[in-house]
Amino acid sequence: MRTVSWEDGQIVLIDQTRLPHSFELIKTSEVPRVAEAIRRLEVRGAPAIGVTAAYGMALAALQEPSGSEKDLRAALKKAYEVLSKTRPTATNLFWALNHMMSFTEELFKSGEKDIPAALLAEAERMADEDVAINQRLAELGATLIKDGDTIHTHCNCGPLCAVDLGTAMAPVIHAHQQGKKIHCYTDETRPRLQGAKLNAWELAGAGVPYTLITDNTAAYIMQQGKIDMVMIGVDRVAANGDTAAKIGVYGVAVLARHHNIPFYAVSPLSTIDMSLASAGEIPVEQRDPDEVRIINDTLITMPDANVVNYAFDVTPNELITAFITEAGILYPPYEKTFKEAFANRES
Amino acid sequence: MRTVSWEDGQIVLIDQTRLPHSFELIKTSEVPRVAEAIRRLEVRGAPAIGVTAAYGMALAALQEPSGSEKDLRAALKKAYEVLSKTRPTATNLFWALNHMMSFTEELFKSGEKDIPAALLAEAERMADEDVAINQRLAELGATLIKDGDTIHTHCNCGPLCAVDLGTAMAPVIHAHQQGKKIHCYTDETRPRLQGAKLNAWELAGAGVPYTLITDNTAAYIMQQGKIDMVMIGVDRVAANGDTAAKIGVYGVAVLARHHNIPFYAVSPLSTIDMSLASAGEIPVEQRDPDEVRIINDTLITMPDANVVNYAFDVTPNELITAFITEAGILYPPYEKTFKEAFANRES
Repeated sequence: MRTVSWEDGQIVLIDQTRLPHSFELIKTSEVPRVAEAIRRLEVRGAPAIGVTAAYGMALAALQEPSGSEKDLRAALKKAYEVLSKTRPTATNLFWALNHMMSFTEELFKSGEKDIPAALLAEAERMADEDVAINQRLAELGATLIKDGDTIHTHCNCGPLCAVDLGTAMAPVIHAHQQGKKIHCYTDETRPRLQGAKLNAWELAGAGVPYTLITDNTAAYIMQQGKIDMVMIGVDRVAANGDTAAKIGVYGVAVLARHHNIPFYAVSPLSTIDMSLASAGEIPVEQRDPDEVRIINDTLITMPDANVVNYAFDVTPNELITAFITEAGILYPPYEKTFKEAFANRES
Repeated sequence: MRTVSWEDGQIVLIDQTRLPHSFELIKTSEVPRVAEAIRRLEVRGAPAIGVTAAYGMALAALQEPSGSEKDLRAALKKAYEVLSKTRPTATNLFWALNHMMSFTEELFKSGEKDIPAALLAEAERMADEDVAINQRLAELGATLIKDGDTIHTHCNCGPLCAVDLGTAMAPVIHAHQQGKKIHCYTDETRPRLQGAKLNAWELAGAGVPYTLITDNTAAYIMQQGKIDMVMIGVDRVAANGDTAAKIGVYGVAVLARHHNIPFYAVSPLSTIDMSLASAGEIPVEQRDPDEVRIINDTLITMPDANVVNYAFDVTPNELITAFITEAGILYPPYEKTFKEAFANRES
């Protein structure tokens, strides 16, 4: 099933904080609960967050009883504020929220009668489009994977990070389904352990041979010559290719460069923020230190240990071999190839 | 108190697996229990393991009732086998065991009457020597630390990793005691979390300002220009300077090089194994995959997740700026400076 979907007037989310031990669904028709799900990482991964936010906007419109233009605008503005204050780094969140706002204005202009229904249809279309884009990422990315290759990845970037299929794991699972003999090393990804909890679970489910390692083992595996390429999912890419992604990705990129291993960022165009010139402008979320101090309700250090907990880091463009996007595999100089990709999409 | 000591016919160990939540002592007069303590990491850190093994040999001799040369040799041989099969990578374990064996032969030759008592005295001397060496490491290493410096470290290398004072944290704590304003970033060090459980606790206890981070955050901290030097403890160094140390150290060394940060290995000479030409000959311990799968009795992934769990990795000599030893701060070429340091010690 899809990570995020719509059923009988409710948003249905796979609760990613319960996996792999328990498969539970969150069903809600409350916008604050949707925001909470994003904040608590019950739904996570840049594309999945974007589509969830779009459904959240549709929900707000459907729940506005008067149907007047003024009340609808107020309800959407309120939902926008609640949903946008959840996670500061991922582009897709803001991209989806802004799209729903401007789409609403278009509906008003066109004289649409049932705006809430049209917003829900738009959210559904975005979900379908996400799946179609990820299918394209899967097919394009798989052309880079040869029979016998071993791929290294970080965090979770399989079906659960998007509506379906995923980003960085989409090419890997696709290559496996094409019959290529491949192997995937997956970092556990502290502090939230999405690699151990989600990515390993998804690879096992897809039948892809994998090995789970602690984050600090990646360097040693690369030193042994075991890794042919790195494929990672990303959270916000600037116009020059500088990339915010899960904390630890920058370190993996430095290690890949040291060992001459190609480093691919699997990135739908919706994750590329052409309004940012470079990484310096990307806000990096810091989260609760207790995410580091406490694992599964147990303290692993002193309760007052001094901790800094960055959710993301920033990888400079020169460490990224290419971006795998639905518009093609884009190589440097990214200022140029990104612009071309967006221009082609709009033409 | 010392990490390992002798009291009323028993070896007394601080149980490092209970910290920082509970301070408990293990008191035993059984050699198999001593071996178990080493295997279960109740005592850990290369110098502490060495001294514990030496006390274990003394224990075996003290418990041999007949006192005949033959029976004593048999008892020591048996203890040697039990103790040597605990952890394959750390040099100090084998160095201490071999030293106790050859010291016994010297005692036989010299006609010593009370060999068990002489072996216990030798273990006590080794413990005292370890403290004296670490005092020297503290003083020498602190000369590299300037007022205002920030040091990055990995794993636990404070007082608990040796008999007292420690290795890589000895210079840091010493510099702090000299009144230098310093700060120490400490990696949590999965899978056993010695950084979070022990190193942060020791730094807090010593009053050194510190920040605990997940292993995968080190790169981002370095990118921000926050780190002036890396200081780490090591487990076995080959004659050319190639170095086995806690899993993750190699990655930190690559990151340090990428960011032009000096990387110092704090290493008593007992950790340098001149019988090994290079890293290729160092056996690297692989431990139970459940150390990765389970944190504090809770599964963080599937119970049958495919995991590889290396306890150590190997850092090539070219990534190490210098070795801080009790014989001085040794710079490349290590083949030459190591030989000179050992020659000076013996002269």
